Amino acid sequence: MVVYGRNAVREALRGPRRVGRVWATAVAAREAWLAGVPMAVCDPRQIEALCGSVDHQGVCAEVSAFRYATAEEVLAIGERTIVVLDQVQDPQNLGAICRSAECAGARAVVIPERRAADVTPAVCKASAGAVEHLPVARVRNLTDFLAQAKRAGRWCYGADGSAPLPYGTVDFGTAPVLVLGAEGHGLRPRVAASCDALVAIPLRGRIESLSVSAAAAVLLYAACGGATGRD
Amino acid sequence: MVVYGRNAVREALRGPRRVGRVWATAVAAREAWLAGVPMAVCDPRQIEALCGSVDHQGVCAEVSAFRYATAEEVLAIGERTIVVLDQVQDPQNLGAICRSAECAGARAVVIPERRAADVTPAVCKASAGAVEHLPVARVRNLTDFLAQAKRAGRWCYGADGSAPLPYGTVDFGTAPVLVLGAEGHGLRPRVAASCDALVAIPLRGRIESLSVSAAAAVLLYAACGGATGRD
Repeated sequence: MVVYGRNAVREALRGPRRVGRVWATAVAAREAWLAGVPMAVCDPRQIEALCGSVDHQGVCAEVSAFRYATAEEVLAIGERTIVVLDQVQDPQNLGAICRSAECAGARAVVIPERRAADVTPAVCKASAGAVEHLPVARVRNLTDFLAQAKRAGRWCYGADGSAPLPYGTVDFGTAPVLVLGAEGHGLRPRVAASCDALVAIPLRGRIESLSVSAAAAVLLYAACGGATGRD
Repeated sequence: MVVYGRNAVREALRGPRRVGRVWATAVAAREAWLAGVPMAVCDPRQIEALCGSVDHQGVCAEVSAFRYATAEEVLAIGERTIVVLDQVQDPQNLGAICRSAECAGARAVVIPERRAADVTPAVCKASAGAVEHLPVARVRNLTDFLAQAKRAGRWCYGADGSAPLPYGTVDFGTAPVLVLGAEGHGLRPRVAASCDALVAIPLRGRIESLSVSAAAAVLLYAACGGATGRD
Protein backbone atom coordinates (compact mmCIF):
# COMPACT_ATOMS: atom_id res chain seq x y z
CA MET A 1 0.00 0.00 0.00
CA VAL A 2 1.03 3.62 -0.40
CA VAL A 3 1.04 5.64 2.81
CA TYR A 4 1.12 9.42 2.67
CA GLY A 5 1.67 12.40 4.88
CA ARG A 6 4.74 13.51 6.78
CA ASN A 7 4.20 11.66 10.07
CA ALA A 8 2.81 8.52 8.43
CA VAL A 9 5.86 8.17 6.15
CA ARG A 10 8.34 9.08 8.87
CA GLU A 11 6.97 6.48 11.28
CA ALA A 12 6.82 3.85 8.51
CA LEU A 13 10.56 4.45 8.01
CA ARG A 14 11.12 4.00 11.76
CA GLY A 15 8.79 1.01 12.17
CA PRO A 16 8.84 -2.68 11.23
CA ARG A 17 7.27 -2.48 7.75
CA ARG A 18 9.33 -2.85 4.63
CA VAL A 19 9.44 0.51 2.86
CA GLY A 20 9.88 0.45 -0.91
CA ARG A 21 9.94 3.57 -3.02
CA VAL A 22 9.52 7.00 -1.46
CA TRP A 23 8.29 10.00 -3.45
CA ALA A 24 8.58 13.59 -2.31
CA THR A 25 8.17 17.08 -3.69
CA ALA A 26 11.32 19.17 -3.99
CA VAL A 27 10.25 21.10 -0.88
CA ALA A 28 9.44 18.04 1.25
CA ALA A 29 12.63 16.29 0.08
CA ARG A 30 14.68 18.88 1.97
CA GLU A 31 13.14 18.04 5.36
CA ALA A 32 15.71 16.77 7.86
CA TRP A 33 13.96 13.48 8.65
CA LEU A 34 14.24 12.44 4.99
CA ALA A 35 18.02 12.92 4.91
CA GLY A 36 19.69 9.83 3.48
CA VAL A 37 16.42 8.26 2.34
CA PRO A 38 16.54 7.29 -1.35
CA MET A 39 13.56 8.92 -3.03
CA ALA A 40 12.11 10.15 -6.27
CA VAL A 41 11.45 13.86 -6.44
CA CYS A 42 8.23 14.65 -8.25
CA ASP A 43 5.49 17.23 -8.34
CA PRO A 44 2.48 17.34 -5.99
CA ARG A 45 0.05 16.08 -8.65
CA GLN A 46 2.12 12.95 -9.20
CA ILE A 47 2.10 12.30 -5.47
CA GLU A 48 -1.64 12.83 -5.39
CA ALA A 49 -2.02 10.29 -8.21
CA LEU A 50 0.24 7.79 -6.43
CA CYS A 51 -1.54 7.92 -3.08
CA GLY A 52 -5.03 8.90 -4.18
CA SER A 53 -5.36 11.74 -1.70
CA VAL A 54 -4.81 15.51 -1.72
CA ASP A 55 -3.77 15.23 1.90
CA HIS A 56 -0.23 14.00 1.25
CA GLN A 57 1.85 16.96 2.51
CA GLY A 58 4.31 16.37 -0.30
CA VAL A 59 5.39 12.85 0.55
CA CYS A 60 4.27 9.24 0.11
CA ALA A 61 5.86 5.80 0.32
CA GLU A 62 5.21 2.27 -0.84
CA VAL A 63 5.13 -0.02 2.19
CA SER A 64 4.42 -3.70 2.79
CA ALA A 65 0.89 -4.68 3.84
CA PHE A 66 -0.12 -3.86 7.38
CA ARG A 67 0.41 -6.91 9.55
CA TYR A 68 -2.41 -7.33 12.05
CA ALA A 69 -1.62 -8.84 15.43
CA THR A 70 -3.58 -11.81 16.78
CA ALA A 71 -5.69 -11.89 19.92
CA GLU A 72 -3.10 -14.20 21.49
CA GLU A 73 -0.29 -11.80 20.76
CA VAL A 74 -1.98 -8.80 22.33
CA LEU A 75 -3.00 -10.80 25.39
CA ALA A 76 0.41 -12.41 25.85
CA ILE A 77 2.07 -9.43 27.49
CA GLY A 78 0.14 -8.63 30.60
CA GLU A 79 0.79 -5.26 32.03
CA ARG A 80 -0.69 -2.67 29.73
CA THR A 81 -4.03 -1.29 28.63
CA ILE A 82 -5.79 -2.74 25.59
CA VAL A 83 -8.37 -0.70 23.68
CA VAL A 84 -11.26 -2.51 21.98
CA LEU A 85 -13.35 -0.66 19.42
CA ASP A 86 -16.86 -1.87 18.70
CA GLN A 87 -17.69 -1.02 15.09
CA VAL A 88 -15.88 2.28 14.84
CA GLN A 89 -16.27 2.85 11.11
CA ASP A 90 -14.75 6.27 10.62
CA PRO A 91 -11.06 6.06 9.60
CA GLN A 92 -10.42 9.45 11.22
CA ASN A 93 -11.69 8.14 14.55
CA LEU A 94 -9.76 4.86 14.30
CA GLY A 95 -6.59 6.77 13.44
CA ALA A 96 -7.08 9.35 16.19
CA ILE A 97 -7.67 6.64 18.79
CA CYS A 98 -4.57 4.70 17.68
CA ARG A 99 -2.54 7.91 18.05
CA SER A 100 -3.81 8.57 21.58
CA ALA A 101 -3.36 4.90 22.52
CA GLU A 102 0.25 4.88 21.37
CA CYS A 103 0.96 8.15 23.21
CA ALA A 104 -0.68 6.96 26.42
CA GLY A 105 1.36 3.76 26.39
CA ALA A 106 -1.40 1.28 25.58
CA ARG A 107 -0.48 -2.26 24.53
CA ALA A 108 -2.72 -2.61 21.49
CA VAL A 109 -5.97 -1.74 19.76
CA VAL A 110 -8.44 -4.48 18.87
CA ILE A 111 -11.02 -4.12 16.13
CA PRO A 112 -13.57 -6.55 14.69
CA GLU A 113 -13.10 -8.03 11.23
CA ARG A 114 -16.43 -6.82 9.96
CA ARG A 115 -18.30 -3.51 9.94
CA ALA A 116 -15.27 -1.56 11.09
CA ALA A 117 -12.56 0.60 9.57
CA ASP A 118 -9.33 -1.29 8.99
CA VAL A 119 -5.79 0.08 8.78
CA THR A 120 -5.89 1.88 5.44
CA PRO A 121 -3.47 4.65 4.42
CA ALA A 122 -6.09 7.18 5.61
CA VAL A 123 -5.93 5.58 9.05
CA CYS A 124 -2.10 5.64 8.99
CA LYS A 125 -2.30 9.36 8.21
CA ALA A 126 -4.94 10.08 10.86
CA SER A 127 -2.88 8.18 13.43
CA ALA A 128 0.20 10.34 12.69
CA GLY A 129 2.03 7.07 12.03
CA ALA A 130 1.18 5.57 15.44
CA VAL A 131 -0.03 2.32 13.82
CA GLU A 132 3.57 1.58 12.81
CA HIS A 133 4.47 1.12 16.49
CA LEU A 134 1.17 -0.04 18.03
CA PRO A 135 -0.14 -3.57 17.47
CA VAL A 136 -3.64 -3.60 15.95
CA ALA A 137 -5.47 -6.91 16.14
CA ARG A 138 -8.48 -7.83 14.03
CA VAL A 139 -10.69 -10.44 15.66
CA ARG A 140 -13.72 -12.30 14.38
CA ASN A 141 -15.88 -11.72 17.41
CA LEU A 142 -15.44 -9.06 20.09
CA THR A 143 -17.42 -10.86 22.78
CA ASP A 144 -15.19 -13.92 22.32
CA PHE A 145 -12.15 -11.68 22.61
CA LEU A 146 -13.46 -10.10 25.81
CA ALA A 147 -14.11 -13.56 27.28
CA GLN A 148 -10.56 -14.57 26.35
CA ALA A 149 -9.19 -11.38 27.96
CA LYS A 150 -11.14 -12.07 31.15
CA ARG A 151 -9.80 -15.63 31.29
CA ALA A 152 -6.33 -14.11 30.97
CA GLY A 153 -7.04 -12.13 34.14
CA ARG A 154 -7.92 -8.79 32.61
CA TRP A 155 -10.81 -6.58 33.66
CA CYS A 156 -12.95 -5.14 30.88
CA TYR A 157 -14.44 -1.66 31.19
CA GLY A 158 -17.03 -0.49 28.69
CA ALA A 159 -17.57 3.23 28.06
CA ASP A 160 -21.25 4.08 28.42
CA GLY A 161 -22.41 7.65 28.87
CA SER A 162 -25.45 6.53 30.83
CA ALA A 163 -23.60 4.26 33.28
CA PRO A 164 -23.87 5.37 36.93
CA LEU A 165 -20.14 4.84 37.58
CA PRO A 166 -17.92 7.85 36.73
CA TYR A 167 -14.58 6.73 35.34
CA GLY A 168 -12.66 8.78 37.89
CA THR A 169 -13.96 6.63 40.76
CA VAL A 170 -12.61 3.44 39.17
CA ASP A 171 -9.25 1.81 39.85
CA PHE A 172 -8.41 0.44 36.42
CA GLY A 173 -5.55 -1.67 37.73
CA THR A 174 -2.49 -2.35 35.62
CA ALA A 175 -3.87 -4.19 32.61
CA PRO A 176 -7.42 -3.11 31.84
CA VAL A 177 -9.32 -3.54 28.62
CA LEU A 178 -11.20 -0.39 27.58
CA VAL A 179 -14.14 -0.95 25.25
CA LEU A 180 -15.57 1.92 23.21
CA GLY A 181 -18.49 1.94 20.82
CA ALA A 182 -19.13 3.79 17.61
CA GLU A 183 -20.06 7.44 17.64
CA GLY A 184 -23.83 7.85 17.98
CA HIS A 185 -24.47 4.18 18.69
CA GLY A 186 -22.41 3.24 21.71
CA LEU A 187 -21.66 -0.36 22.57
CA ARG A 188 -23.80 -3.13 21.19
CA PRO A 189 -25.77 -4.80 24.02
CA ARG A 190 -23.88 -8.10 23.81
CA VAL A 191 -20.54 -6.29 23.91
CA ALA A 192 -21.66 -4.16 26.87
CA ALA A 193 -22.85 -7.30 28.66
CA SER A 194 -19.39 -8.85 28.21
CA CYS A 195 -17.73 -6.06 30.21
CA ASP A 196 -17.01 -6.37 33.91
CA ALA A 197 -18.18 -2.80 34.47
CA LEU A 198 -19.55 0.11 32.49
CA VAL A 199 -18.08 3.52 33.21
CA ALA A 200 -19.24 6.99 32.23
CA ILE A 201 -17.39 10.15 31.40
CA PRO A 202 -19.59 12.72 33.14
CA LEU A 203 -21.15 15.34 30.89
CA ARG A 204 -21.64 18.75 32.41
CA GLY A 205 -22.93 20.69 29.47
CA ARG A 206 -26.02 20.50 27.29
CA ILE A 207 -24.82 18.41 24.37
CA GLU A 208 -25.28 14.68 24.45
CA SER A 209 -21.87 13.14 24.04
CA LEU A 210 -18.14 13.47 23.65
CA SER A 211 -16.66 12.29 20.39
CA VAL A 212 -15.42 8.71 20.59
CA SER A 213 -11.85 9.90 20.03
CA ALA A 214 -12.05 12.45 22.88
CA ALA A 215 -13.62 9.84 25.14
CA ALA A 216 -10.83 7.41 24.25
CA ALA A 217 -8.14 10.00 25.04
CA VAL A 218 -9.68 10.77 28.45
CA LEU A 219 -10.10 7.10 29.40
CA LEU A 220 -6.70 6.07 28.05
CA TYR A 221 -4.87 8.62 30.17
CA ALA A 222 -6.99 7.70 33.20
CA ALA A 223 -6.38 3.97 32.72
CA CYS A 224 -2.74 4.03 31.65
CA GLY A 225 -1.76 6.11 34.66
CA GLY A 226 -0.10 8.58 32.32
CA ALA A 227 -1.20 11.64 34.27
CA THR A 228 1.82 11.77 36.51
CA GLY A 229 4.42 10.39 34.14
CA ARG A 230 5.16 7.55 36.57
CA ASP A 231 4.41 3.87 36.10
CA MET B 1 -25.09 31.71 7.97
CA VAL B 2 -26.34 28.25 7.11
CA VAL B 3 -25.42 25.54 9.60
CA TYR B 4 -25.68 21.90 8.61
CA GLY B 5 -25.63 18.46 10.12
CA ARG B 6 -27.96 16.85 12.61
CA ASN B 7 -26.32 17.90 15.88
CA ALA B 8 -25.42 21.37 14.65
CA VAL B 9 -29.00 22.13 13.61
CA ARG B 10 -30.54 20.54 16.69
CA GLU B 11 -28.35 22.54 19.06
CA ALA B 12 -29.00 25.74 17.09
CA LEU B 13 -32.72 25.13 17.67
CA ARG B 14 -32.06 24.69 21.40
CA GLY B 15 -29.60 27.57 21.72
CA PRO B 16 -29.81 31.38 21.72
CA ARG B 17 -29.44 32.04 17.99
CA ARG B 18 -32.38 33.06 15.85
CA VAL B 19 -33.16 30.20 13.50
CA GLY B 20 -34.78 31.12 10.18
CA ARG B 21 -35.61 28.57 7.54
CA VAL B 22 -34.86 24.88 8.05
CA TRP B 23 -34.44 22.49 5.14
CA ALA B 24 -34.47 18.70 5.44
CA THR B 25 -34.65 15.67 3.23
CA ALA B 26 -37.82 13.58 3.47
CA VAL B 27 -35.89 11.03 5.55
CA ALA B 28 -34.32 13.53 7.94
CA ALA B 29 -37.66 15.39 8.30
CA ARG B 30 -39.10 12.37 10.10
CA GLU B 31 -36.53 12.44 12.91
CA ALA B 32 -38.11 12.99 16.31
CA TRP B 33 -36.08 16.07 17.25
CA LEU B 34 -37.46 17.92 14.20
CA ALA B 35 -41.10 17.33 15.22
CA GLY B 36 -43.01 20.60 15.19
CA VAL B 37 -40.21 22.52 13.45
CA PRO B 38 -41.46 24.30 10.30
CA MET B 39 -39.25 23.24 7.44
CA ALA B 40 -38.96 22.84 3.71
CA VAL B 41 -38.52 19.29 2.50
CA CYS B 42 -36.08 19.09 -0.39
CA ASP B 43 -33.61 16.70 -1.94
CA PRO B 44 -30.02 16.16 -0.75
CA ARG B 45 -28.52 18.11 -3.67
CA GLN B 46 -30.53 21.19 -2.81
CA ILE B 47 -29.30 20.96 0.78
CA GLU B 48 -25.75 20.58 -0.46
CA ALA B 49 -26.20 23.71 -2.59
CA LEU B 50 -27.66 25.65 0.34
CA CYS B 51 -24.91 24.81 2.82
CA GLY B 52 -22.00 24.22 0.48
CA SER B 53 -21.02 20.89 1.99
CA VAL B 54 -21.70 17.23 1.28
CA ASP B 55 -21.51 16.61 5.00
CA HIS B 56 -25.02 17.83 5.82
CA GLN B 57 -26.71 14.59 6.95
CA GLY B 58 -29.91 15.71 5.29
CA VAL B 59 -30.53 18.90 7.23
CA CYS B 60 -29.48 22.55 7.31
CA ALA B 61 -30.78 25.78 8.81
CA GLU B 62 -30.38 29.49 8.35
CA VAL B 63 -29.27 31.03 11.64
CA SER B 64 -28.26 34.49 12.82
CA ALA B 65 -24.55 35.34 12.87
CA PHE B 66 -22.49 33.74 15.62
CA ARG B 67 -22.19 36.18 18.50
CA TYR B 68 -18.71 36.11 19.99
CA ALA B 69 -18.34 36.77 23.69
CA THR B 70 -15.95 39.42 25.00
CA ALA B 71 -12.95 38.85 27.23
CA GLU B 72 -14.81 40.63 30.02
CA GLU B 73 -17.81 38.35 29.69
CA VAL B 74 -15.80 35.15 29.90
CA LEU B 75 -13.78 36.43 32.86
CA ALA B 76 -16.82 37.79 34.72
CA ILE B 77 -18.00 34.45 36.09
CA GLY B 78 -15.20 33.03 38.14
CA GLU B 79 -15.49 29.40 38.88
CA ARG B 80 -14.91 27.44 35.70
CA THR B 81 -12.15 26.46 33.31
CA ILE B 82 -11.39 28.66 30.30
CA VAL B 83 -9.64 27.22 27.25
CA VAL B 84 -7.37 29.48 25.20
CA LEU B 85 -6.28 28.34 21.73
CA ASP B 86 -3.13 29.83 20.25
CA GLN B 87 -3.51 29.86 16.46
CA VAL B 88 -5.43 26.65 16.05
CA GLN B 89 -6.27 26.97 12.37
CA ASP B 90 -8.00 23.70 11.59
CA PRO B 91 -11.81 24.01 11.87
CA GLN B 92 -12.03 20.32 12.80
CA ASN B 93 -9.73 20.87 15.76
CA LEU B 94 -11.50 24.04 16.89
CA GLY B 95 -14.86 22.26 16.67
CA ALA B 96 -13.61 19.13 18.45
CA ILE B 97 -12.12 21.20 21.28
CA CYS B 98 -15.34 23.21 21.69
CA ARG B 99 -17.26 19.93 21.92
CA SER B 100 -14.96 18.52 24.62
CA ALA B 101 -14.96 21.86 26.47
CA GLU B 102 -18.75 22.00 26.57
CA CYS B 103 -18.95 18.37 27.73
CA ALA B 104 -16.33 18.85 30.43
CA GLY B 105 -18.15 21.89 31.78
CA ALA B 106 -15.71 24.60 30.74
CA ARG B 107 -16.78 28.23 30.90
CA ALA B 108 -15.60 29.36 27.47
CA VAL B 109 -13.12 29.03 24.64
CA VAL B 110 -10.95 32.01 23.69
CA ILE B 111 -9.38 32.39 20.24
CA PRO B 112 -7.33 35.17 18.68
CA GLU B 113 -8.83 37.40 16.00
CA ARG B 114 -6.11 36.65 13.49
CA ARG B 115 -4.48 33.49 12.13
CA ALA B 116 -7.07 31.22 13.71
CA ALA B 117 -10.20 29.37 12.65
CA ASP B 118 -13.36 31.23 13.58
CA VAL B 119 -16.82 29.81 14.19
CA THR B 120 -17.88 28.85 10.68
CA PRO B 121 -20.59 26.30 9.86
CA ALA B 122 -17.83 23.67 9.53
CA VAL B 123 -16.83 24.41 13.13
CA CYS B 124 -20.47 24.23 14.27
CA LYS B 125 -20.69 20.80 12.64
CA ALA B 126 -17.37 19.58 14.07
CA SER B 127 -18.42 20.76 17.52
CA ALA B 128 -21.67 18.72 17.31
CA GLY B 129 -23.48 21.98 18.05
CA ALA B 130 -21.53 22.68 21.26
CA VAL B 131 -20.77 26.25 20.13
CA GLU B 132 -24.47 27.07 20.53
CA HIS B 133 -24.12 26.64 24.30
CA LEU B 134 -20.49 27.52 24.93
CA PRO B 135 -19.26 31.13 24.81
CA VAL B 136 -16.45 31.63 22.32
CA ALA B 137 -14.53 34.89 22.67
CA ARG B 138 -12.32 36.37 19.99
CA VAL B 139 -9.61 38.62 21.39
CA ARG B 140 -7.07 40.83 19.66
CA ASN B 141 -4.08 39.65 21.65
CA LEU B 142 -3.75 36.43 23.64
CA THR B 143 -0.96 37.64 25.90
CA ASP B 144 -3.11 40.64 26.88
CA PHE B 145 -5.99 38.27 27.60
CA LEU B 146 -3.78 36.05 29.76
CA ALA B 147 -2.57 39.11 31.70
CA GLN B 148 -6.18 40.15 32.20
CA ALA B 149 -7.08 36.64 33.39
CA LYS B 150 -4.21 36.65 35.86
CA ARG B 151 -5.30 40.04 37.21
CA ALA B 152 -8.75 38.48 37.68
CA GLY B 153 -7.14 35.86 39.92
CA ARG B 154 -6.92 33.00 37.47
CA TRP B 155 -3.95 30.71 37.01
CA CYS B 156 -2.85 30.05 33.46
CA TYR B 157 -1.46 26.64 32.45
CA GLY B 158 0.14 26.17 29.07
CA ALA B 159 0.32 22.73 27.46
CA ASP B 160 3.89 21.95 26.41
CA GLY B 161 5.01 18.43 25.66
CA SER B 162 8.55 19.18 26.76
CA ALA B 163 7.66 20.75 30.12
CA PRO B 164 9.02 18.84 33.13
CA LEU B 165 5.72 19.07 35.03
CA PRO B 166 3.23 16.25 34.24
CA TYR B 167 -0.35 17.55 34.29
CA GLY B 168 -1.42 14.87 36.77
CA THR B 169 0.80 16.35 39.48
CA VAL B 170 -0.86 19.76 39.19
CA ASP B 171 -3.76 21.05 41.26
CA PHE B 172 -5.59 23.15 38.69
CA GLY B 173 -7.81 24.78 41.31
CA THR B 174 -11.34 25.84 40.49
CA ALA B 175 -10.92 28.37 37.70
CA PRO B 176 -7.85 27.63 35.62
CA VAL B 177 -7.05 28.87 32.15
CA LEU B 178 -5.72 26.12 29.86
CA VAL B 179 -3.65 27.32 26.92
CA LEU B 180 -3.06 25.04 23.92
CA GLY B 181 -1.05 25.70 20.80
CA ALA B 182 -1.53 24.66 17.21
CA GLU B 183 -0.79 21.13 16.10
CA GLY B 184 2.87 20.81 15.16
CA HIS B 185 3.86 24.23 16.43
CA GLY B 186 2.89 24.39 20.09
CA LEU B 187 2.61 27.66 21.94
CA ARG B 188 4.31 30.76 20.63
CA PRO B 189 7.12 31.79 23.00
CA ARG B 190 5.38 34.98 24.15
CA VAL B 191 2.19 33.08 24.89
CA ALA B 192 4.10 30.36 26.78
CA ALA B 193 5.92 33.05 28.75
CA SER B 194 2.56 34.52 29.79
CA CYS B 195 1.53 31.29 31.52
CA ASP B 196 2.03 30.70 35.23
CA ALA B 197 3.17 27.14 34.55
CA LEU B 198 3.72 24.81 31.62
CA VAL B 199 2.41 21.27 31.96
CA ALA B 200 3.08 18.17 29.90
CA ILE B 201 0.93 15.22 28.99
CA PRO B 202 3.48 12.41 29.29
CA LEU B 203 4.14 10.44 26.10
CA ARG B 204 4.94 6.79 26.58
CA GLY B 205 5.19 5.65 23.00
CA ARG B 206 7.41 6.47 20.08
CA ILE B 207 5.43 9.13 18.25
CA GLU B 208 6.03 12.75 19.04
CA SER B 209 2.74 14.21 20.10
CA LEU B 210 -0.91 13.83 20.84
CA SER B 211 -3.32 15.67 18.59
CA VAL B 212 -4.31 19.06 19.99
CA SER B 213 -7.91 17.89 20.33
CA ALA B 214 -6.91 14.76 22.30
CA ALA B 215 -4.61 16.84 24.49
CA ALA B 216 -7.44 19.29 25.11
CA ALA B 217 -9.83 16.49 26.10
CA VAL B 218 -7.32 15.02 28.56
CA LEU B 219 -6.47 18.38 30.17
CA LEU B 220 -10.09 19.57 30.23
CA TYR B 221 -11.24 16.52 32.18
CA ALA B 222 -8.26 16.80 34.50
CA ALA B 223 -8.81 20.51 35.11
CA CYS B 224 -12.62 20.56 35.27
CA GLY B 225 -12.68 17.79 37.86
CA GLY B 226 -15.08 15.87 35.67
CA ALA B 227 -13.52 12.50 36.41
CA THR B 228 -15.68 11.74 39.40
CA GLY B 229 -18.85 13.53 38.34
CA ARG B 230 -18.65 15.68 41.49
CA ASP B 231 -18.00 19.41 41.71
